[in-house]
Amino acid sequence: MIETRFTRAFGLTHPVLAAPMANVAGGALAAAVCSAGGLGVIGGGYCDPEWIATQVAAAGNTPVGVGFITWRLSEAPGLLERELARNPRAVFLSFGDFAAYQPVIRAAGVPLIAQVQTLADARHAVAAAADVIVAQGAEAGGHGNGRATLTLVPEVADMLVAEAPDVLLLAAGGIVDGRGLAAALTLGADGVVCGTRFWASAEALRPEGQLPQALAADGDATIRTSVGDVARGFDWPGGWALRSLRNDFVKRWSDDLPGLAEDDTARAAWISGAEAAPIVGEGIGVIHDAPPAAKILDRMSAEAAAILAGGWRKG
Amino acid sequence: MIETRFTRAFGLTHPVLAAPMANVAGGALAAAVCSAGGLGVIGGGYCDPEWIATQVAAAGNTPVGVGFITWRLSEAPGLLERELARNPRAVFLSFGDFAAYQPVIRAAGVPLIAQVQTLADARHAVAAAADVIVAQGAEAGGHGNGRATLTLVPEVADMLVAEAPDVLLLAAGGIVDGRGLAAALTLGADGVVCGTRFWASAEALRPEGQLPQALAADGDATIRTSVGDVARGFDWPGGWALRSLRNDFVKRWSDDLPGLAEDDTARAAWISGAEAAPIVGEGIGVIHDAPPAAKILDRMSAEAAAILAGGWRKG
Repeated sequence: MIETRFTRAFGLTHPVLAAPMANVAGGALAAAVCSAGGLGVIGGGYCDPEWIATQVAAAGNTPVGVGFITWRLSEAPGLLERELARNPRAVFLSFGDFAAYQPVIRAAGVPLIAQVQTLADARHAVAAAADVIVAQGAEAGGHGNGRATLTLVPEVADMLVAEAPDVLLLAAGGIVDGRGLAAALTLGADGVVCGTRFWASAEALRPEGQLPQALAADGDATIRTSVGDVARGFDWPGGWALRSLRNDFVKRWSDDLPGLAEDDTARAAWISGAEAAPIVGEGIGVIHDAPPAAKILDRMSAEAAAILAGGWRKG
Repeated sequence: MIETRFTRAFGLTHPVLAAPMANVAGGALAAAVCSAGGLGVIGGGYCDPEWIATQVAAAGNTPVGVGFITWRLSEAPGLLERELARNPRAVFLSFGDFAAYQPVIRAAGVPLIAQVQTLADARHAVAAAADVIVAQGAEAGGHGNGRATLTLVPEVADMLVAEAPDVLLLAAGGIVDGRGLAAALTLGADGVVCGTRFWASAEALRPEGQLPQALAADGDATIRTSVGDVARGFDWPGGWALRSLRNDFVKRWSDDLPGLAEDDTARAAWISGAEAAPIVGEGIGVIHDAPPAAKILDRMSAEAAAILAGGWRKG
């Protein structure tokens, strides 16, 4: 319904990429998104080869993409090459310098999608020859930082027009419905990346029991903090932190990260899932259901198309 | 060119309100915006009666609105009543609980425009009978906090549809061109509030010498911090802080606010303007000129209209 440079380049019917949420975007979600005409990407995240192999199997015969946390790739030698050997639809890299990995991805003929959070990193991504740049705003769930989607996207768009007009641009952060998709297109994006919207989908591998509290939350109820990373023992570089719901655990520890690091009982309560906060973004406030991914895509595209056809007018 | 409930309600030709930037939005800017078909508002800010009187005079015979920092109004007894007596086009209140001031504004027959930064405060503004709600994202220049424009606007829009459908909604924060205006309309706003865009206008009362550094900055170069407030001796409540360029002064003091509070020489360097940072938002990155307000309005509306007529398509 909405044709863009992104849908043409990847043979899609919806200009929507379902974000490679670590451990949440498994093979079933990625395959469902791809089958429905979006771009689905397995959330390889922290680079656990076994989990990734299981999810690749779960995707079955549907070609899907794969995403990694860039700074973790160095701890998983050979993983990228193994994934490239099965010819994924794209490799999605975020959070770290991907320049060292670009040549092998390019050699495999696989599109490289690079997510950035600042104009400076967007320039670096162009210099390192990404095929698609994702401009991610701080309103996003999960890791991120810095700029807002609304200002980052048009500024990166202007930079690409001037310096790299063939590089595609996707907007990420806060986009959960047709309004957000329409807004992203008006800002100069070729499509969008949605995490939180697909976290609340039928196919997502959500931690058990988290859906009701997330659907009940408004958008004021999230916070970006390192609590979840300290709890899990992840030593995140680069100033990136994790947006999640501000649950009791997060409230308790967000001002005492050193204390949390030393409290094995508390950390275990997050790791077990008992006190873990749902990792969702500000857009959760307008999400009220968890339908199949195909329905999410159809609804989002139809709403955006109607808005862009004049439906933005009110009263 | 773009007609909305906001343009109809206020008799405008552009769905754009030029923000009441304290000490920057003077009578000349407010009058120029109103004469060109937008809504101009004198930035009464910290409620200095003399400055406001001077700017009201500067606006001449053009009816303009007036804005105040709500928590400062209690320190200026009689000021609101005096301003209401000259029948401003609107009163714009932000940063604090305005419920105590609503009855006198309503009795004067003057529209009350209330700016909020969270869904919770938007609900309070509805309960306190604001006529127009401004949903301001954290990417904005000047004071603010919390949510991003891209997620706050549609969530407040949904709340208003359900609970107060006659209340108008404006989007603020990060909107500096026709792309941002178009995006705000697709998100469900009836119009926009622009600060930074008019900070860089011919009529703005900018601190001397700040324009070149602002026009040279990209959107990565701002930060939200209390440095400027501590330097000026303002005791801001409520968690609101000030987005400005991250100049050397801000870098020096942002991690040492207590030290700044005690350093009269440093504080004087901000107050004199010698080391003050330009108070602009993330949108500064796509601003490259400072034309008359009328040109800004024409350009923004024309660009947004073209985008919404299908111009969002690329390639």
